[in-house]
Amino acid sequence: MIIKVKAGQAHIIDELQRRFGDSHDVFVHNNRVAVQGIDESDLNSEERAAADEIIDNPPAAVQGSRLFHPEDTIVETAHSQIGGDNFTMMAGPCSVESAEHVMKMAAVAKEGGATVLRGGAFKPRTSPYSFQGLGEDGLKFLRAAADAYDLDVLTEVMDQDHVDMIAQYTDIFQIGARNMQNFSLLKAVGKTNIPVMLKRGMSATIDDILNASEYIAAGGNHQIIITERGIRTFDNKYTRNTLDLGAVPVLQKLTHYPVIVDPSHAAGHTEFVIPEALAGVAIGASGLVVEIHDDPAHAFSDGAQALKPNEYLEMTQKAAAIREALNMPVHEKSEVEL
Amino acid sequence: MIIKVKAGQAHIIDELQRRFGDSHDVFVHNNRVAVQGIDESDLNSEERAAADEIIDNPPAAVQGSRLFHPEDTIVETAHSQIGGDNFTMMAGPCSVESAEHVMKMAAVAKEGGATVLRGGAFKPRTSPYSFQGLGEDGLKFLRAAADAYDLDVLTEVMDQDHVDMIAQYTDIFQIGARNMQNFSLLKAVGKTNIPVMLKRGMSATIDDILNASEYIAAGGNHQIIITERGIRTFDNKYTRNTLDLGAVPVLQKLTHYPVIVDPSHAAGHTEFVIPEALAGVAIGASGLVVEIHDDPAHAFSDGAQALKPNEYLEMTQKAAAIREALNMPVHEKSEVEL
Amino acid sequence: MIIKVKAGQAHIIDELQRRFGDSHDVFVHNNRVAVQGIDESDLNSEERAAADEIIDNPPAAVQGSRLFHPEDTIVETAHSQIGGDNFTMMAGPCSVESAEHVMKMAAVAKEGGATVLRGGAFKPRTSPYSFQGLGEDGLKFLRAAADAYDLDVLTEVMDQDHVDMIAQYTDIFQIGARNMQNFSLLKAVGKTNIPVMLKRGMSATIDDILNASEYIAAGGNHQIIITERGIRTFDNKYTRNTLDLGAVPVLQKLTHYPVIVDPSHAAGHTEFVIPEALAGVAIGASGLVVEIHDDPAHAFSDGAQALKPNEYLEMTQKAAAIREALNMPVHEKSEVEL
Amino acid sequence: MIIKVKAGQAHIIDELQRRFGDSHDVFVHNNRVAVQGIDESDLNSEERAAADEIIDNPPAAVQGSRLFHPEDTIVETAHSQIGGDNFTMMAGPCSVESAEHVMKMAAVAKEGGATVLRGGAFKPRTSPYSFQGLGEDGLKFLRAAADAYDLDVLTEVMDQDHVDMIAQYTDIFQIGARNMQNFSLLKAVGKTNIPVMLKRGMSATIDDILNASEYIAAGGNHQIIITERGIRTFDNKYTRNTLDLGAVPVLQKLTHYPVIVDPSHAAGHTEFVIPEALAGVAIGASGLVVEIHDDPAHAFSDGAQALKPNEYLEMTQKAAAIREALNMPVHEKSEVEL
Repeated sequence: MIIKVKAGQAHIIDELQRRFGDSHDVFVHNNRVAVQGIDESDLNSEERAAADEIIDNPPAAVQGSRLFHPEDTIVETAHSQIGGDNFTMMAGPCSVESAEHVMKMAAVAKEGGATVLRGGAFKPRTSPYSFQGLGEDGLKFLRAAADAYDLDVLTEVMDQDHVDMIAQYTDIFQIGARNMQNFSLLKAVGKTNIPVMLKRGMSATIDDILNASEYIAAGGNHQIIITERGIRTFDNKYTRNTLDLGAVPVLQKLTHYPVIVDPSHAAGHTEFVIPEALAGVAIGASGLVVEIHDDPAHAFSDGAQALKPNEYLEMTQKAAAIREALNMPVHEKSEVEL
Repeated sequence: MIIKVKAGQAHIIDELQRRFGDSHDVFVHNNRVAVQGIDESDLNSEERAAADEIIDNPPAAVQGSRLFHPEDTIVETAHSQIGGDNFTMMAGPCSVESAEHVMKMAAVAKEGGATVLRGGAFKPRTSPYSFQGLGEDGLKFLRAAADAYDLDVLTEVMDQDHVDMIAQYTDIFQIGARNMQNFSLLKAVGKTNIPVMLKRGMSATIDDILNASEYIAAGGNHQIIITERGIRTFDNKYTRNTLDLGAVPVLQKLTHYPVIVDPSHAAGHTEFVIPEALAGVAIGASGLVVEIHDDPAHAFSDGAQALKPNEYLEMTQKAAAIREALNMPVHEKSEVEL
Repeated sequence: MIIKVKAGQAHIIDELQRRFGDSHDVFVHNNRVAVQGIDESDLNSEERAAADEIIDNPPAAVQGSRLFHPEDTIVETAHSQIGGDNFTMMAGPCSVESAEHVMKMAAVAKEGGATVLRGGAFKPRTSPYSFQGLGEDGLKFLRAAADAYDLDVLTEVMDQDHVDMIAQYTDIFQIGARNMQNFSLLKAVGKTNIPVMLKRGMSATIDDILNASEYIAAGGNHQIIITERGIRTFDNKYTRNTLDLGAVPVLQKLTHYPVIVDPSHAAGHTEFVIPEALAGVAIGASGLVVEIHDDPAHAFSDGAQALKPNEYLEMTQKAAAIREALNMPVHEKSEVEL
Repeated sequence: MIIKVKAGQAHIIDELQRRFGDSHDVFVHNNRVAVQGIDESDLNSEERAAADEIIDNPPAAVQGSRLFHPEDTIVETAHSQIGGDNFTMMAGPCSVESAEHVMKMAAVAKEGGATVLRGGAFKPRTSPYSFQGLGEDGLKFLRAAADAYDLDVLTEVMDQDHVDMIAQYTDIFQIGARNMQNFSLLKAVGKTNIPVMLKRGMSATIDDILNASEYIAAGGNHQIIITERGIRTFDNKYTRNTLDLGAVPVLQKLTHYPVIVDPSHAAGHTEFVIPEALAGVAIGASGLVVEIHDDPAHAFSDGAQALKPNEYLEMTQKAAAIREALNMPVHEKSEVEL
């Protein structure tokens, strides 16, 4: 149940916490109090009188819901504000391949207006015999490249035992699609104060991803970004996944967390990444995360879906043009010598 | 097999038709000849010498393929040019409800720049006990409304025995998702010279819809429009279907027919129709087909997904702004007194 | 609404028909009356008093529902009783290929205990350039073969204009998966008195197929058989479709029509047809329909999924053994000289 | 590449390991050697001469494949032999609820012929606010109950940091569907010598689950059991998931690991669990894993799909009857005083 407390009745908030806090999960956001597992009959008359509105049966993922937290969450990092009216470009190689290569890709990312540099050092590969990433060395290269261009780092954490180590290098944790319901991992990043980008699982419903995000919020970390990256359907001959763009406005209605789009993993083929990216901008996503590579044919992983630098720059220009056409704020490209 | 015949060797085209036409399906487009079911070893040395290029294993839907017909098909009707650089807005009520109502909706459609008025007179309803449409009376009302505003008519044909009758009223036949593989119906409209808008079936792959379109082309009718309208996936709690926008650039690569987007049936709820429509514009669709209604709560069918006039007009303005931002041609709104 | 009328109150049935029959769909089965589109408040006090039970909000497909018609429907043909405690084997070639071939296959079908001979004369092929069937000649061959072995004929009708012609040859119409929502065709067979086997569409929900069957029932034909034949999912590399056997007990709970299983189209590969068939028997299906061929490599269509005669006979023996083990009636193989 | 070495040429196996072992993954099973990432041209003439057969392009999950390991793996625990001609019943409550309750359920499981007692102490719940299991106390109760009835323990491990602790109590680790691609967890159980039951992810393809199992095998643990438990499709109104029984014979063809069926999570409703279980037996699964509860309405989790004791016993009798009918070995129920 969510109780929206009337102005001037703030003591009721304390009262509710005192009464129910030991036995139930109780969450407070401004003048709203969510108490899990009770209903209106559990309130006393004073509490009922202090309520502007009582919402029975809120969704299980209550902290992430607009009913509990109506205004947009804006995730703040050193170089980015993600959510609200902002638009955030995140780009980088699929895998960190070397110090030099990721430095070069950081320059490209920056040129296109990105404020976040993505790159994998620990790779969740379908086969145990595929390249598994450079590990901590990769993180060092990624951090150095991001620092050289005043970018934030975004990198995947696959293992809860790596959380502390990766926390030394990253500005945003990525939880990959395959780990969307790895609850131990979600709990582990939920105990940090580092923003988390949670990618939708291949067969996760809207409710599933909201519940997964609640595992992070339940630990006290509310800096959450939700990413649509394509779902698994029968239609997989020409694209790797089916980008479910309709999920973007649905999620924006239900949750206050920023929602961004990953067209690279959805499309799976470079030629379809730009159109899907632009569709993501037009539908109102708070940002894009894309894979770039200067020599896709020799990329260590996922070369087929990487944008070449010129393709990426074309995409970012078109993305900005759409934002402008729709009167969505377009942030100035930061100035940097490349 | 497709043989691309060298300049100055046009007699080889006749030769191929003569040699194979009785026993195989043979199609000619400019200097390209498709002969179904043969391979290079079936050609004689003169034929091989006359070939610029030989394409083995073209797709089964050869007439619809870019390999056979590289340039865009532009479907031409009295008031519209659909495909190529054009962008076509199609709007109207789900069902034709009365002469007055469809006339009012035609005015709205026109005001938003539509050149095609859609409306159902024969409705494919899931239940036999639901409203099945006004039938031929509905077609008369629809035709009158379209004529009053210089619009083309788009209406669904569900039954091959209705083809001739509906042909008297419509400019474009619609084949609905449920009939996408009703081959008798496809053959029937394939024998007319009226353009056909073919909607993707709920679980149709890209190849399935191309093969379905080939049933129309095989009858001699090449005025075909393909419509993405959402597919059936596990994700159907908040949207009616999953709009597979990635299919748009895939189809545009594979076929020369125009590809348009129906956000109404995909979204299923008005609030998600506009974002999905704009995403469809940004991804490069050749047009949109949307349902509009001035009183959705009392619509005879599908009110939940109808745009109100002001919502529709907002959408068309934003659609035009995106086209302009991406340097896609934006056609002038025709002038009309409303 | 369904009204279950008390014993001795049969006049109320007439009364309900008289009062509502002009304006609403009214159906009667024994002492149950379904009136579409009314609720309890529309009944007068006498009617309410005569009711044993009132069921609000029955499913749209009311005539097919157990709520309206609790007992099993048994479809009766010259040689078969389908449904109830019966188990019916249906077998034959995918396409009728020649008079001789179908005669040979009829002998095999019979030897395995089949009472129904299946065979396609009009084939719904994905591509317009694939073999489309022998047409009426095929029907003649099929009829002759069935008659020679005292079998019923089951064959697909794809086109409502063929209904009368095919009716001269067949004992059971098959409506294929692609036409499951071809409502004109459903209405056409609904007006005949020939049993109809309705195959589930590739992305049809349980409710969809029940509603499709209601189109047949609404025309007055209640001799309906429902067939699970696999649905389209992401899992299609090793099997052609995903056989949804869980749908069998679900359908049996909801509807009184017999439910049978087609393992051939689900599996798509011979080696998986027998296991899927046996699973279908164990789950309680009222029958199987399988494709057989003595030379699958040269079959005109779908050879990859055809059982060879010895494989078919092995399957029928195992099917009978499972029926016996589960104390389900096993019908005697009819005696015939082969 | 897989090299099948001729009899009498065993020294070549050592030679291949010596030559490639430092730079490639090399696996040996009897006279078969798999070397990842090489092809025939990398072999010298002596090696080629020693080969009976060379298999290029084996699947990525090579250790799990029949090409590398043709004969069935039989997983051996204290009380069970899983795989091969054996049939293994696994039953127990969804969650361990108390020492007394799980003891009672163990008696029921045993009575039905189970040799494995399942029960969850750490529960992967969609919502962080749902009951998360009794933890290590639950494991103690489960172990005690299993020991009292000479049963093996099967319990889920969700967190790699729990592996050592849970190893003290369990005979078989369960990896749940949501963690099927939690590669850190797979690696962790791969380093133990305790059998692992790996459940198919909700949208995992056949290849995905085989690759996931290879993460376990790559760590040296080959005691793997694969479980089909239903996939996510559009068809989820009446059953919780779509049981993909066709996957059973497909997996049995591709891999040597035992394949079992979980009808409880697939059906989601008790009334459909038994039919799905029997279908699983008939299709040839090596066992069943089912949830049982004496008071489903008050179960801590998943009560809707639990079989009551009498239902479970009915199921096990019918399962045995089907095995017998199909001449599959039926193991004697062990004798125990209850």
